[in-house]
Amino acid sequence: MDYQIFETKERLLADNAAAAAQTRARTRQSGALLVNLMGSPGAGKTSTLLQLIRLLGDKYTVGVMEADVDSDVDAKTIAHTGTRVIQLHTAGLCHMDADMTARGLDAMGIEGLDIIFLENIGNLVCPAEFEVGADIRMMLLSVPEGDDKPLKYPLMFTVSDVLLINKIDTVPIFDFDLDKARARVKALNESMEIFPVSAKTGEGFAAVAALLREKIEQRRALR
Amino acid sequence: MDYQIFETKERLLADNAAAAAQTRARTRQSGALLVNLMGSPGAGKTSTLLQLIRLLGDKYTVGVMEADVDSDVDAKTIAHTGTRVIQLHTAGLCHMDADMTARGLDAMGIEGLDIIFLENIGNLVCPAEFEVGADIRMMLLSVPEGDDKPLKYPLMFTVSDVLLINKIDTVPIFDFDLDKARARVKALNESMEIFPVSAKTGEGFAAVAALLREKIEQRRALR
Repeated sequence: MDYQIFETKERLLADNAAAAAQTRARTRQSGALLVNLMGSPGAGKTSTLLQLIRLLGDKYTVGVMEADVDSDVDAKTIAHTGTRVIQLHTAGLCHMDADMTARGLDAMGIEGLDIIFLENIGNLVCPAEFEVGADIRMMLLSVPEGDDKPLKYPLMFTVSDVLLINKIDTVPIFDFDLDKARARVKALNESMEIFPVSAKTGEGFAAVAALLREKIEQRRALR
Repeated sequence: MDYQIFETKERLLADNAAAAAQTRARTRQSGALLVNLMGSPGAGKTSTLLQLIRLLGDKYTVGVMEADVDSDVDAKTIAHTGTRVIQLHTAGLCHMDADMTARGLDAMGIEGLDIIFLENIGNLVCPAEFEVGADIRMMLLSVPEGDDKPLKYPLMFTVSDVLLINKIDTVPIFDFDLDKARARVKALNESMEIFPVSAKTGEGFAAVAALLREKIEQRRALR
C-alpha cells in the first residue's frame, strides 16, 4: 500500500521561520529591538522586566507584550510603570509563535519604540522550538530551579543568546553551583552571555542594561 | 468553496483518552496505582520521589518512570535507591501522552508493582492537557515560583487531584502567601488536596505517604 507522509511539524516550523523573518525585517525598519524573554514559571520574568524598564526607561521608549495562557496580572504590573504594554492570551497554547507575535506587535503598535520585550509563556520546552523573529533571545534560569537544568532542557540553552541566572541572592540556601551551571551552559552554547542577577535586589542588572543599550544604539544607527 | 475542517487536536485528545482508559484498566488489573507527577522545571519532582520511596518502599514495591526531554540524571538518582526505574526520552516533546506512557509501562514491566510514579516533563502547560491514564494526578508548586501560578496556569491546577506546595522551608525568604495560594487553587478546584512539604527536610511527607498508602490498599482490595 502506498501512502503519503506529510511532515506537519516540519511544515509548521518552516511557516513559522518565514513569519519570523518578516517580523525581523519589520522591527529593523522601524528601529525597534525585539527581545524574546523565556524561562520557567516563576523564574522571575516580570520582575526582570521591571528592573530593565527602570534602567532603560529614562532614555529609551520601551514596549512590553505579556503572553500568558490566562490572566492579566503581569500586564497590570507592567502598566503601573507607565510602559506601553499589551496582554496576549494564548488560550491554552504553551508558547508564542511568530504569527501570534506579529499580531501582538500589530495590536500594540511599534512606532516610536526603541525596545520591545515579549514575555513568553513560562516553559523551558516549547518556546525554544518556535522563533518569533526576536533580535535577542534572553532566557532566565532561577537558582531554586537547580544547576542541572541545562542537562534537562538543552534546546532552550542552545538557542538563547543571553542567560540571566536570577535569584542569585538565594544561592546560599539552595544547592546551586554557579560554576557547574556555567560549564553546563557553555558546553551547549559557547557564545552564551551569562549574567548572575537578582530581580529582587537589582544586583547584576546594570551589566544587562549596558548590553541592551549597546544593541539599541546599533539598531538606531541602522535606521 | 466547500472544504472539510479536520479538528486535529480534538482527534488527538480523543485517541489519547482512549489509550489512557486502556492503561487505567491494565493497572487496575495488575493491582498497581499509577501516579502522574507534574510541575515546573526545578519544582522538586525527583526529590519528592526520593521522599515518597523512603516512606513507602519498606512495605510496597515502587516503580518509577522518569520522563525527560534529554539526559538520565533523574533515573540515575532514583536507581541509587534500588527502586525499579526506567528513563523515557521524549526527544523534544514537552509532555508525556497516554501512548508513550503505555509503552513506558511495557518497557519497565509492571508485574509485582504496588505503585508506579511517572515523573512528567517539567512544564505547567502541556502535561495538563494529556491524561496518561493515572489514578492520581499529583502536581508540585514550589514556593520560589510564587503564589500567583494558579492564576497563570489554571488548567494544571484544575485537572490535578493532589497539590504539594514544595520548598515550604523557604517561605520566609520569598514573598509567598500560603493562604492566598490555597484560596486561588480552591477557586479553580475545590476538591484539591493540598500538602505543604519540603522535599529537602522531609517536612509534610508523612501525610502525603498516608494518603498514598490508603489508595494503594484500596487498589489491592480490588485485586
